[in-house]
Amino acid sequence: MAKSKLFIIKIGGNVLDKEEALNKFLDDFTLINQPKILIHGGGKIATKLGEQLGIESKYVNGRRITDEATIDLVTMVYGGLVNKQLVARLQQKGCNAIGLTGADGNVIKAIKRPVKDIDYGFVGDIRPEEVNVTLIQTLLNENIIPVFAPLTHSQGVMLNTNADTIAATLAIALSTEYDVRLIYCFEKKGVLMDVNNDDSVITHLPEKKYKDLLTQNVLADGILPKLENAFDSIRKGVSEVLIGDANDLIKNTSDHTAGTLITK
Amino acid sequence: MAKSKLFIIKIGGNVLDKEEALNKFLDDFTLINQPKILIHGGGKIATKLGEQLGIESKYVNGRRITDEATIDLVTMVYGGLVNKQLVARLQQKGCNAIGLTGADGNVIKAIKRPVKDIDYGFVGDIRPEEVNVTLIQTLLNENIIPVFAPLTHSQGVMLNTNADTIAATLAIALSTEYDVRLIYCFEKKGVLMDVNNDDSVITHLPEKKYKDLLTQNVLADGILPKLENAFDSIRKGVSEVLIGDANDLIKNTSDHTAGTLITK
Repeated sequence: MAKSKLFIIKIGGNVLDKEEALNKFLDDFTLINQPKILIHGGGKIATKLGEQLGIESKYVNGRRITDEATIDLVTMVYGGLVNKQLVARLQQKGCNAIGLTGADGNVIKAIKRPVKDIDYGFVGDIRPEEVNVTLIQTLLNENIIPVFAPLTHSQGVMLNTNADTIAATLAIALSTEYDVRLIYCFEKKGVLMDVNNDDSVITHLPEKKYKDLLTQNVLADGILPKLENAFDSIRKGVSEVLIGDANDLIKNTSDHTAGTLITK
Repeated sequence: MAKSKLFIIKIGGNVLDKEEALNKFLDDFTLINQPKILIHGGGKIATKLGEQLGIESKYVNGRRITDEATIDLVTMVYGGLVNKQLVARLQQKGCNAIGLTGADGNVIKAIKRPVKDIDYGFVGDIRPEEVNVTLIQTLLNENIIPVFAPLTHSQGVMLNTNADTIAATLAIALSTEYDVRLIYCFEKKGVLMDVNNDDSVITHLPEKKYKDLLTQNVLADGILPKLENAFDSIRKGVSEVLIGDANDLIKNTSDHTAGTLITK
């Protein structure tokens, strides 16, 4: 039996922080009438609130550290304020959303990042094997739409986990059961052939073409880690990864995509 | 077929604010091997954080008002920090908890309290008819334990709803499917015959005895609203209401209760 389609969609601060863009995105997300999952990042509110509370961002060797005050802050802001406001708004639009962190229903169990050179603090590393696929299937079968905050857990404490990583890990884990298209909404129309020309979107990027472009040194440095992650997901079972603009969500959940469609 | 037992347990700040009491409570809650639901209140942390952020508690005619800054604050603290920390700790102890507000899965839809003499702001009034019993049953059937924050939603916004009210409303709604014991953990051992004697717990309080005690003017004024709510739940289908100490949870989920057992 063919697997059914599942859209796993990640939005970041560039959508969350702009009311008009966010509202359109939530309208469009609601309109998708196939199984779907939303993962959100943080936005500026955590930084702003952190400043008000006198919680300083800490860095060691340029790497951000999540200390105890910071994990409490992001648990409040990402797991509480941002997550619940998104859920309430989706409910109003007719999308039966449920807010989740990795702790809820043990849906993503992490390990606290081991201390080697740097102690990153309350940061969770995750693996597709530790995703509770059954719970997500149960929810999707009831037409309940998971909305993930970028938080996981281990040993009784909450942990900070990158939203892109959660999206990719969910996509890989769920690809055993679904034909997954992982969609990263970002600040450009897609991966650009020419970084100075917003209309130079590469609409289809199979791995062979990607390797050719790498050889030709065409791609901007900034996009390379994103593409490495995308192809890693593809190699691990995800059917398609799409990198595009949140504004193009409707197109990007159809066959006529507007962003960059990444395939094997 | 006889309905299966369901324990609906409410804890307030008196448990949440004391680490040792809370840890014992979570251990005991985990040990209950029948269907169960937890509802938590706020604790001191919201007040403390509100002060740090310069959010003042507002009152009109002695009634607390939930303005926009306050609903954001409690959405963060109750829906994020308190709820997720409880869920993570329960997971560690082996209880497969899932954190919920009324918005999640549309599990409790409210109406924003209508403005009459006072505008209470972002406060949600709820009714048993608006509880999504199917979702709660689905979770309980999968042995996933709902942990409710005192928040509901309506028309795309989060609303503040009293935790005692959420507990009673869930109990009434779920009594169509379960034999419900609603347990209020509070700061005394139970309802006292003599308010100055902590050992004068009334162990069993059927409605007839309650009416006799009312006639005799024996009960302390402070407990009367709680008892009125309890008997209201009983009249609407809840099998038993127990008012007791969080420390006695294990006893109070057995046949040999330590607090005040309220029945028809």
